[in-house]
Amino acid sequence: MADLPKALFAMDPVFLPQLFPGPLMRRLGAVLDIDPGTVTRSFEGTDLAEFEVIVSGWGSPAIDAAVLDRAPRLRAVLHAAGSVKGHVGAAVWDRGIAVASAAGANAMPVAEYTLAAILMAGKGIFNLRERFRAERTFELGYIHPEVGNFGLRVGLIGASAIGRRVAELLRPFDIEVLLADPYLDEAEAAALGARLVDLDHLVTQANVVSVHAPDLPETRHLVDARRLAAMKDGTVLVNTARGRLVDTDALVAELRTGRLSAVLDVTHPEPPQRESELYDLPNVFLTPHVAGSQGNELARMGLCIVEEAERLAAGEPLLNRVDPELLGRRA
Amino acid sequence: MADLPKALFAMDPVFLPQLFPGPLMRRLGAVLDIDPGTVTRSFEGTDLAEFEVIVSGWGSPAIDAAVLDRAPRLRAVLHAAGSVKGHVGAAVWDRGIAVASAAGANAMPVAEYTLAAILMAGKGIFNLRERFRAERTFELGYIHPEVGNFGLRVGLIGASAIGRRVAELLRPFDIEVLLADPYLDEAEAAALGARLVDLDHLVTQANVVSVHAPDLPETRHLVDARRLAAMKDGTVLVNTARGRLVDTDALVAELRTGRLSAVLDVTHPEPPQRESELYDLPNVFLTPHVAGSQGNELARMGLCIVEEAERLAAGEPLLNRVDPELLGRRA
Repeated sequence: MADLPKALFAMDPVFLPQLFPGPLMRRLGAVLDIDPGTVTRSFEGTDLAEFEVIVSGWGSPAIDAAVLDRAPRLRAVLHAAGSVKGHVGAAVWDRGIAVASAAGANAMPVAEYTLAAILMAGKGIFNLRERFRAERTFELGYIHPEVGNFGLRVGLIGASAIGRRVAELLRPFDIEVLLADPYLDEAEAAALGARLVDLDHLVTQANVVSVHAPDLPETRHLVDARRLAAMKDGTVLVNTARGRLVDTDALVAELRTGRLSAVLDVTHPEPPQRESELYDLPNVFLTPHVAGSQGNELARMGLCIVEEAERLAAGEPLLNRVDPELLGRRA
Repeated sequence: MADLPKALFAMDPVFLPQLFPGPLMRRLGAVLDIDPGTVTRSFEGTDLAEFEVIVSGWGSPAIDAAVLDRAPRLRAVLHAAGSVKGHVGAAVWDRGIAVASAAGANAMPVAEYTLAAILMAGKGIFNLRERFRAERTFELGYIHPEVGNFGLRVGLIGASAIGRRVAELLRPFDIEVLLADPYLDEAEAAALGARLVDLDHLVTQANVVSVHAPDLPETRHLVDARRLAAMKDGTVLVNTARGRLVDTDALVAELRTGRLSAVLDVTHPEPPQRESELYDLPNVFLTPHVAGSQGNELARMGLCIVEEAERLAAGEPLLNRVDPELLGRRA
């Protein structure tokens, strides 16, 4: 058997056991010569001369030109987390090093949270719960006339990996999916079970609007005061992407009147200031940035990277390779 | 064109417009001679001699032997709601009258609520939200080690229409489904994507236990103090079925310690007394019996019954016929 490629873990070591529990670490060790006891948070002072592969994760130091000059044999970066921005510098692409990321695996829990939020909030369950808690009674047998998910119209902003997965997860339901994305055409949207619409139209039509766009200078306040005002009474805004995509002050103004509701896993600022109304408004379901991979969900990202390492060893193409051409429009 | 069968609405009239909005009422009127302006809540004083079909719903008076004696031409009861118990007496079965119900359509929203509850509570989202609300801050970038839905094990108690639909909805996820039902065999469970287990085993193995059994004398306190005590720390109990299936006092005792969590759409008593801890415990998500059809979801039941009326008119067999042999073990 040939020598295995030498590889190095580069991340915050706290995540290693959850990313690669026993069986996954053994599979990784079968295709890479990698030491689970060495997890670097800094490339300073580390001899990189022999490493062919870096397995990175949250807390990984950046791989820039200076690092690459000391790592002449490096041919792959396998990132056991979502975005590689901030970890992988331009020099990595310039030198043709293969980069794969577990962004697809990290999209799963976010899409699951979003699906659950849509089903709950689409039917007004969060608001009904708050009212029940306050009133401590309800009229048995009363049927709420203005709620329900039969024929619900959901508007997804952004056909990101997460947005696409949400569209896919919504298929078994009697829910119509609208999708706004400047880079998508009608046929691609239809293949996702969605109807391509303009963002300004989407916000006027949807019962639930869910944000899945990347956080870029041009997407700042994508959901601004004007688009919030254009939403129908009772619309629910779901944000599991990034807080800056929404104008928080304008949103709070709409939420305060009760006209809109919101499910927010992210905000700007994050967390909201202690005096923010977002904590207590009965029409806001606010969670502490937990829709992404947590706990056992890190092992799904680890599994993705183990499979990439196995493909690398077998000389097969990586399935989750990052395309640098698309980085400018990705999270 | 032949005369249409004469039919009568029997229910609380408040539900009629939501069960049969315009287009559905027109389809119904195309196959039944039925007057939308006459919705009876009592068969007293109504001439039933000519009616061949009763379209019933919530609030329908019972159809017993005395009613049938006055309705010699009755050949079908189409129930635009869930259970026909309480509406359809033994005489209806004895006389061979066809009975169809929209229980399958009513199962959909309950299963959707349950799926959302599993995805949210399986990852501890409800509890994290309550903590965030209380503390009004969180550590950005902290990854919660003990949560997550990757490899979650869900135990479904009861292969009812709702239990089966929940199993089906859980298929796209990395979730293992255990199913306990005394009337199911292993092959039937496997066809639902689930593993058949004994109830006592289920409660020790599942991370989330969801109740979908009928409320019968023999299922009272099916989830009792012993079975609650057998659950692992951190297990979540979801009840969208009936409050009597769970020993409320024993559950509250477990919830008070924080050992278990719960998502409860039903309780016994219902609503809980004003002083009940269920309203305020941070590990309880309590909703006012709204998982079933609400608002626009009534039209899904109406659609089901319109389609049955169309089959009746075409001489085709009813698809949602109630089997009286199975009533004793159904909700």
